[in-house]
Amino acid sequence: MTTADGLSADVIVVGAGFAGLTAARELVKRDVSTILLEARDRVGGRVLNHPIGDGQALDVGAQWVGPGQDHMIALADEMGVKRFPTPGAGMKNVDYMDGARTVHDGDVPDGGDPATLIETLNAFRTLTQMSEEVPTDDPWNAEHAREWDAQTFQVWMDANIQDATAKTRVQTAIEAVYAVEPHDLSLLFMLWYAKAGQGIMNLVSTEGGAQAEQYDGGTQLVAIRTAELLGDRVHLSHPVRRITQNGERLTVEGDRFKVQGKRVIVTLPPPLAGRIDYDPAMPAIRDQLTQRAPMGCVIKVHVLYDEPFWRDEGLSGRVVSDTGPVRVSFDNTPLSGSPGVLVTFIEGGDGRRFANASEEERRDAVVQCMERYFGPKAAKPSGYVEKDWPADQWSRGCYGSVFPAGTLVSCGSALREPVGSIHWAGTETATMFPGYMDGAVRSGERAAAEVLELLA
Amino acid sequence: MTTADGLSADVIVVGAGFAGLTAARELVKRDVSTILLEARDRVGGRVLNHPIGDGQALDVGAQWVGPGQDHMIALADEMGVKRFPTPGAGMKNVDYMDGARTVHDGDVPDGGDPATLIETLNAFRTLTQMSEEVPTDDPWNAEHAREWDAQTFQVWMDANIQDATAKTRVQTAIEAVYAVEPHDLSLLFMLWYAKAGQGIMNLVSTEGGAQAEQYDGGTQLVAIRTAELLGDRVHLSHPVRRITQNGERLTVEGDRFKVQGKRVIVTLPPPLAGRIDYDPAMPAIRDQLTQRAPMGCVIKVHVLYDEPFWRDEGLSGRVVSDTGPVRVSFDNTPLSGSPGVLVTFIEGGDGRRFANASEEERRDAVVQCMERYFGPKAAKPSGYVEKDWPADQWSRGCYGSVFPAGTLVSCGSALREPVGSIHWAGTETATMFPGYMDGAVRSGERAAAEVLELLA
Repeated sequence: MTTADGLSADVIVVGAGFAGLTAARELVKRDVSTILLEARDRVGGRVLNHPIGDGQALDVGAQWVGPGQDHMIALADEMGVKRFPTPGAGMKNVDYMDGARTVHDGDVPDGGDPATLIETLNAFRTLTQMSEEVPTDDPWNAEHAREWDAQTFQVWMDANIQDATAKTRVQTAIEAVYAVEPHDLSLLFMLWYAKAGQGIMNLVSTEGGAQAEQYDGGTQLVAIRTAELLGDRVHLSHPVRRITQNGERLTVEGDRFKVQGKRVIVTLPPPLAGRIDYDPAMPAIRDQLTQRAPMGCVIKVHVLYDEPFWRDEGLSGRVVSDTGPVRVSFDNTPLSGSPGVLVTFIEGGDGRRFANASEEERRDAVVQCMERYFGPKAAKPSGYVEKDWPADQWSRGCYGSVFPAGTLVSCGSALREPVGSIHWAGTETATMFPGYMDGAVRSGERAAAEVLELLA
Repeated sequence: MTTADGLSADVIVVGAGFAGLTAARELVKRDVSTILLEARDRVGGRVLNHPIGDGQALDVGAQWVGPGQDHMIALADEMGVKRFPTPGAGMKNVDYMDGARTVHDGDVPDGGDPATLIETLNAFRTLTQMSEEVPTDDPWNAEHAREWDAQTFQVWMDANIQDATAKTRVQTAIEAVYAVEPHDLSLLFMLWYAKAGQGIMNLVSTEGGAQAEQYDGGTQLVAIRTAELLGDRVHLSHPVRRITQNGERLTVEGDRFKVQGKRVIVTLPPPLAGRIDYDPAMPAIRDQLTQRAPMGCVIKVHVLYDEPFWRDEGLSGRVVSDTGPVRVSFDNTPLSGSPGVLVTFIEGGDGRRFANASEEERRDAVVQCMERYFGPKAAKPSGYVEKDWPADQWSRGCYGSVFPAGTLVSCGSALREPVGSIHWAGTETATMFPGYMDGAVRSGERAAAEVLELLA
C-alpha cells in the first residue's frame, strides 16, 4: 500500500465508491491531477463482492440496475462487466399474508379480497400523482413541501389506507425501497426519492423496473476495474479525519497522512461527512444536514442451496410476506445457475429485533421463513452469508441517507451547495436515482464538472 | 495550559459542561483518579458568560432554573453563586398577535377571542394528560409510543387545534422550549421531555416555572468554580478524537495527546459523541442514535439599553408575538439594574432565514421588533450581543438534541446503555429535566455512580 502522505494534486476526492471513482475518472480524463482517498482497504463503498468460488460472487451490497439508470449502465458497459436479467421472469411469485401462502403470476397477487388490491394500487397511484409535483432539484420548493415534510409516511398511510392488508403491502414495499420504517420517513422525502427514481412503481418493480438486471461476477467488479484505471492515484486505508481550508490552500489529513490540493470532493453520505473535522467549521445549515439525514438500516442476507430448486416448481424466488424477518426475497443465483441463492433484507423493526441476536439466531429465523415460502428443501441450506451494513464502520447503514420529517425543508438546500473549496457528491446528492448506484455515478460526474469549471 | 499527554487515571471524562464537571467531581470526592478533557479553551459547555464590565455578565447560553431543578440549584448554592428571581414578576406582559399589541397581567393574554384562549389552554391540558402516560426512564415503552413517535408535533397540532391564533400560540411556546419547529419534533419526544421537565406548563412558565430564577454574575460562574475544585485534572483545548477499547485497556486520544484509563464518561450530546472515532466501532443502534438526534437551532440575542426603561411603564420585558424574529423576550437586566437588557431567541424558521444574514441585518430586525413591543426608546440600544449556537463548533446547536419522529422508538434505548467501558452522560441522557442544566448535573451524577459501582 502506498501512502498519500506529502502528495498534492489539484483535486482530492474522498471516498472510492461509485461517486468518488467516477469523479476522479472524469477529472483524470481531463488531465486534472487527482488523489482519491478511501478509508477501507478496498474500493466500492456500499457495493461489495463476496466471492463464492469459480470466479463467482454474491453482491452483499448494491446490485440491481434498471431502465433509466443509464449512467451506471454506461460505466459498467465500459468496464466490460456484463448484465443479466434478474432471474424469475415469467415465473410465479409467492405471497404470504395473514398466515396463508399463495402463488401468483406477475406483480399482483390474485388471491385475497379484491378491495385490498384496489386500495393498494390506489395508494401507489395517489403517491405517484403527488410525487409528480415535487421538483427533483429542489424538493423543498414543492407547492406542498412544508405540509408533506411535516408528516411521516406512517401518518400518510394511517390517513389514506383503511384496509389493514393494503397497508401491510404498502409498508412492505416502502421498507424494501427505503430500508427504514414508515415513521422514519418524511412524506416529502419519500415522494422526492420516488420521483427522482422515475416513480415509486419503477422502484418496486423487477421486470422493467429498478431491480431488472444485475452484474455477472458481482457489481464490485465495475468499481475494481474503474479503480484500476486510476492506478496509484487511489489510496486505500486512508480514512480522512480533517479538511482545512486556509485561503487558497486546502489540506486533507488522516492519521498518518496529509495531502494538499485546490479543491476537494467529499462523497460520503451526510452523517459520515459530518464526522470529518472541518477547519473552519461548517456553516450551521450544512452541519445540521449532517445531523439529520440518518442512514437506512439493512442487513442483506443470502441463503445458499446446492441448486435453485424453486425454479423446478416454477417459482421465481420472489416473495412478499407480512411475516418477518423475510418480508421480501429474490432469486440471486449467479448466471451459471449454481449455487442456488435466495437473497433477503432484514430491515426496519426486524433489523432492530435481530440487532442483538447472534448470526445463528438470524440464520435460523431466515431459513424458517424460506421453508415457509419454498417448502422443506429450503430448510437445508448449504451456506449463509450476511452483511450487516449498520454495523459497518465506513457506511453505518444502507442503502443511503433517509430524511426524517423536517430535514428537506430545513436543510435540504445544503446537500450540494459547496462550502469554500469543498464540493459534495455521493448518491444522496443526486437529482436522478438518489440512493442508487446510478445516482452515485451521476453525482460524481456533476461534482467533477463543478470543479472543472472552477479550475478552468 | 497543561497537556494531558501521557497521563492515566481510573476515569476519563470527556466534556467540561455541567455533566462532565459533576461526574468528575463525584469521582474525585470518592478519591477516584480522574482526568477531564475539554475541547474548548473554557469550561461550561452550552453555558457561557459574556462579560459586560463591573463583574457583570450576560448569560449567552443556558441561564434559568426553577422549582424541581434541585441538583443544579444545589450545585450553584455550593459554589456560592446567588440566584435572583427573573425580573418582571407582577408586571405586565406584551402580546403581539395579528398586528395588534396588547398588554396584560399574568401568563394569559386577556384580549382577543375567548374561544382562542380556551382552545390554547385545552391544547396544553391535553398534552399534559398525554404526557402523564409516558415513563421518563423508557418513553419508548409508553402505551402509545409507536403511534406518538410516528407523528410530528406539527401533525398533532394540525389535527387537534382548529383556531389559527391558538395554533400560533402553541407553536410559539413549543419553539421557545425546544428550539426547533413543530415538524422537527416527534410527538412522543415532545411529551417525554415535557413530562421529565415536570410538565409542559412548567417549562413554559416563568414565575414558579422553569424560567423562575437566574444567577448573579452569570451561570458560567458555577462551572468555573466547580472546575477550580478539580484543579489540574481539567485539561482545556483537548478535543477528543478517538476512544480505543482493547480488553481492559482504554485509550482516549486527541491530536496531540493520549491518555489511558479504565472507564470513560462521554458527556457530549449524541450527534457530537457520534463524531468521535471509536475502536471497536459502536454497535449499530448506538451509532444510529447519534445519526438521528440533531441539535436544536437557536441564536440567543441580547439587546442592551442604558436602563430597563420598560420597567417604568410597568412592563415585565416579556413578549409573546406571532411576528419574528422576536417571538418571545425576557428582561435579562443584571441584578444591579444596569444596563437594561432584553433577551430573545432566534429559532426555527427565523433562524434559517437569518442564518445567512449579517449580524447587522439580524440586529436591525431584532431592534425593529423590540421597538414594536416596547416603543421608540427600544429603537436606540446601547449594545447588541448574539451567540450563534448552531455555528459553534463544539455545540453545533442548542439547547440540546431534539428527536425527530421514529428516533425514540428505534434507538432511544441506546441513550444511556454503556458500550464496554464507555458510559454516556449529558443532559440528553437525563430522565429528569433533559435539555436543562439540571438534567446535565443529574446525568453526571448518574454516570459517576455507574462507574463507581463498576470500579468498586
